[in-house]
Amino acid sequence: MTNDINEPTALDYAAGGGLLSRRMLLGTIAASGGAMAAGLAVPHRAGAQGVVPEWVTVAGHRARGYGMPAEAEAPVQRAIIEPWQDVAPEFSLSGTPLQRLRGTITPSGLHFEVHHGGRPDVDPDQHRLMIHGLVDRPLQFDLNSLERYPMVTATHFLECAGNSLVNAVMPEPLQAGCDVIHGLLSNSEWSGVPMSVLMDEAGVQPEGKWVVAVGSDGPSLARSIPIEKIMEDGILALYQNGERIRPEQGYPMRLLLPGFEGNMNVKWLTSLWVTDAPAHTKHESGEYTEILADGSSVKFTFAIGVKSLITHPSATMTMSGPGFYEISGLAWSGVGKVARVEVSADGGASWADAELVEPVLPRALTRFRMPWQWDGSPTILMSRAHDDTGALQPARPDWKARYHPSNFLHYNAIQPWNVTAEGEVQNVYL
Amino acid sequence: MTNDINEPTALDYAAGGGLLSRRMLLGTIAASGGAMAAGLAVPHRAGAQGVVPEWVTVAGHRARGYGMPAEAEAPVQRAIIEPWQDVAPEFSLSGTPLQRLRGTITPSGLHFEVHHGGRPDVDPDQHRLMIHGLVDRPLQFDLNSLERYPMVTATHFLECAGNSLVNAVMPEPLQAGCDVIHGLLSNSEWSGVPMSVLMDEAGVQPEGKWVVAVGSDGPSLARSIPIEKIMEDGILALYQNGERIRPEQGYPMRLLLPGFEGNMNVKWLTSLWVTDAPAHTKHESGEYTEILADGSSVKFTFAIGVKSLITHPSATMTMSGPGFYEISGLAWSGVGKVARVEVSADGGASWADAELVEPVLPRALTRFRMPWQWDGSPTILMSRAHDDTGALQPARPDWKARYHPSNFLHYNAIQPWNVTAEGEVQNVYL
Repeated sequence: MTNDINEPTALDYAAGGGLLSRRMLLGTIAASGGAMAAGLAVPHRAGAQGVVPEWVTVAGHRARGYGMPAEAEAPVQRAIIEPWQDVAPEFSLSGTPLQRLRGTITPSGLHFEVHHGGRPDVDPDQHRLMIHGLVDRPLQFDLNSLERYPMVTATHFLECAGNSLVNAVMPEPLQAGCDVIHGLLSNSEWSGVPMSVLMDEAGVQPEGKWVVAVGSDGPSLARSIPIEKIMEDGILALYQNGERIRPEQGYPMRLLLPGFEGNMNVKWLTSLWVTDAPAHTKHESGEYTEILADGSSVKFTFAIGVKSLITHPSATMTMSGPGFYEISGLAWSGVGKVARVEVSADGGASWADAELVEPVLPRALTRFRMPWQWDGSPTILMSRAHDDTGALQPARPDWKARYHPSNFLHYNAIQPWNVTAEGEVQNVYL
Repeated sequence: MTNDINEPTALDYAAGGGLLSRRMLLGTIAASGGAMAAGLAVPHRAGAQGVVPEWVTVAGHRARGYGMPAEAEAPVQRAIIEPWQDVAPEFSLSGTPLQRLRGTITPSGLHFEVHHGGRPDVDPDQHRLMIHGLVDRPLQFDLNSLERYPMVTATHFLECAGNSLVNAVMPEPLQAGCDVIHGLLSNSEWSGVPMSVLMDEAGVQPEGKWVVAVGSDGPSLARSIPIEKIMEDGILALYQNGERIRPEQGYPMRLLLPGFEGNMNVKWLTSLWVTDAPAHTKHESGEYTEILADGSSVKFTFAIGVKSLITHPSATMTMSGPGFYEISGLAWSGVGKVARVEVSADGGASWADAELVEPVLPRALTRFRMPWQWDGSPTILMSRAHDDTGALQPARPDWKARYHPSNFLHYNAIQPWNVTAEGEVQNVYL
């Protein structure tokens, strides 16, 4: 490298702490264009390679039926999160390693898990879905019969209502990675039958206002869903990222309610009971109800709030010295599209708009990116998202003020990352 | 079911052979809306289920680090295609089982393979990428150094220039599935560093008009690429569907040239040599050059032509009796977006526009869907795609007339599927 990273030329700053104009992301054939051409050198750390690698000198492996990641990527796994004391061991969780991933699609093998009774071994030939209750024609479906129905395809995130709970309830910030702190969040391309088509065939009666969805797992997880949401964009999801839904995500079929908290997207779906009122199952009344500061409870909170997270760099990472970095992260909202993401590299003193990677889809993860020239001094990185309803991601004190200290549900506060002079990235509260 | 599939009511036809208006795809809460409410019954074949399934009565499995498809899905594999006689066994191919998939994303484990020398075991720590030749600053990168660069994310298809070759050269239509006939086609979300950023840092000299890309595999597969394409939208791809690129797709890094024939997207990329003229490597002159009808050769054919394929139903499938079906398929073009897909259910006598599933992205697979009421009589299903440059997918006789009988490259003709009275779906030529 001929460039001196300590004296970059022709820099175009957007905010404090070294945030650069998004124009610095644009490479052009003109030598004057682009962050790198402007002298933002990255140390390549690429030693001379004197010999032809051994693998170039031999014949490689033949084609195989189903591929797997490279052996060197074996450490890229979901973080197994041990359940807290008073929960049965079958209540198991694993977090997506967001800090190891790029783009927006979550590989199906790394999609987060929250199982109230473990992952059942469902026999797809024996599995049935029943639509009953306040309908003109009760219906029962097997997997094959659904293959002839109209199918839609849409990319949507799923987030557990309890995601980021350690930041919500721990008095001191936990020093762990995005997989442990924020990993109950994933994004997939789902394909399946529109719920409205199945409900029309069954013929929902006028007094049918709610649908109680029940899963075919040990606890028979059950949630009450307003009929309006079922008809608006509910999907009986049969495929995930092109192939059949994985066992962890409800094989052979799950309910998908775009933007609603994870557990309402009932896995291993076996029954849709049309009723005139919610069932107040223990899963909705006892496990997924927030307690407000005044001690009152929020009966039903369905949609995930607007939220964002810087994944690169993030806690447990160590930066490789001063110079150019691209800050990269994810933003999402359960009520619409991400409209804007702001990034601060000086602890919130100044903010600049990040670039949103197209296509920005409703109720789907959106990748944002921001060029940054780190001068090597300690600082704090933050991101805050706005959605197209005008909602803004709150700061932690504002979120905490709304809820009872014990509440850990629907935590969507700003995540600050502290960067030390040594380049260590740490979880902090602001 | 109370509906009589032989006497559907309130049907709205769009063309011959039972093609229905796309409005029949819309389910609404009004009992009059939607194909199913209109009486398009699907036989559910769902026998009574008298007992609680065993799996609901026991605790399920705990969370695991990396998930896999359900055991019942084990048959969903890539089709291993044996190389023809005069090719080394290391020249191995496998086809994506398009007839078993839905949506548009190809699961990374099922992405097609074409390896000229097999799949190498590349050590990511030892791998290097060099940019050299007509540049001001020759550069060498290791995998870690690239993590600090700006990264873009985009969904693009890859198709082998030899895809569908059996339809191109076999005198009689091969009776095989989409995996064998058309499976050298996949679609992924790719993330990586824009080539323009790396080229700007190297400083391409005015006489640098071509880039020779070389792979780190046994044959050192090499292709010459116009510098304009490299700078316009070339990507050094490091991630595929969120995680590190799979070994079959070039781990740890490959060149991605959106819309260009598969082999030019050089896998296991190790060298980018900027030159003033193409290198005429054997892979471009000897293996990927089409012969025209008059015996002349096409020196360079880079972009994949506009093409479409009905995947549901398709050859080797047997339909489960008369009644409602959704015809579903894929369309794509290497030069832009799919603008329109027409479907015929009467062997081309009449056509109707299919619905394109949003978002329709440039140089990416687009899913199309068309409601169909099959009356049980023999017929032929076809689809033809238009792209936003005005190009139309050709019929097989028109395609064959352009090339020498031996040519099997860039076959993009219409695929007719013959449906017998017994519901068998067969490959035919028209």
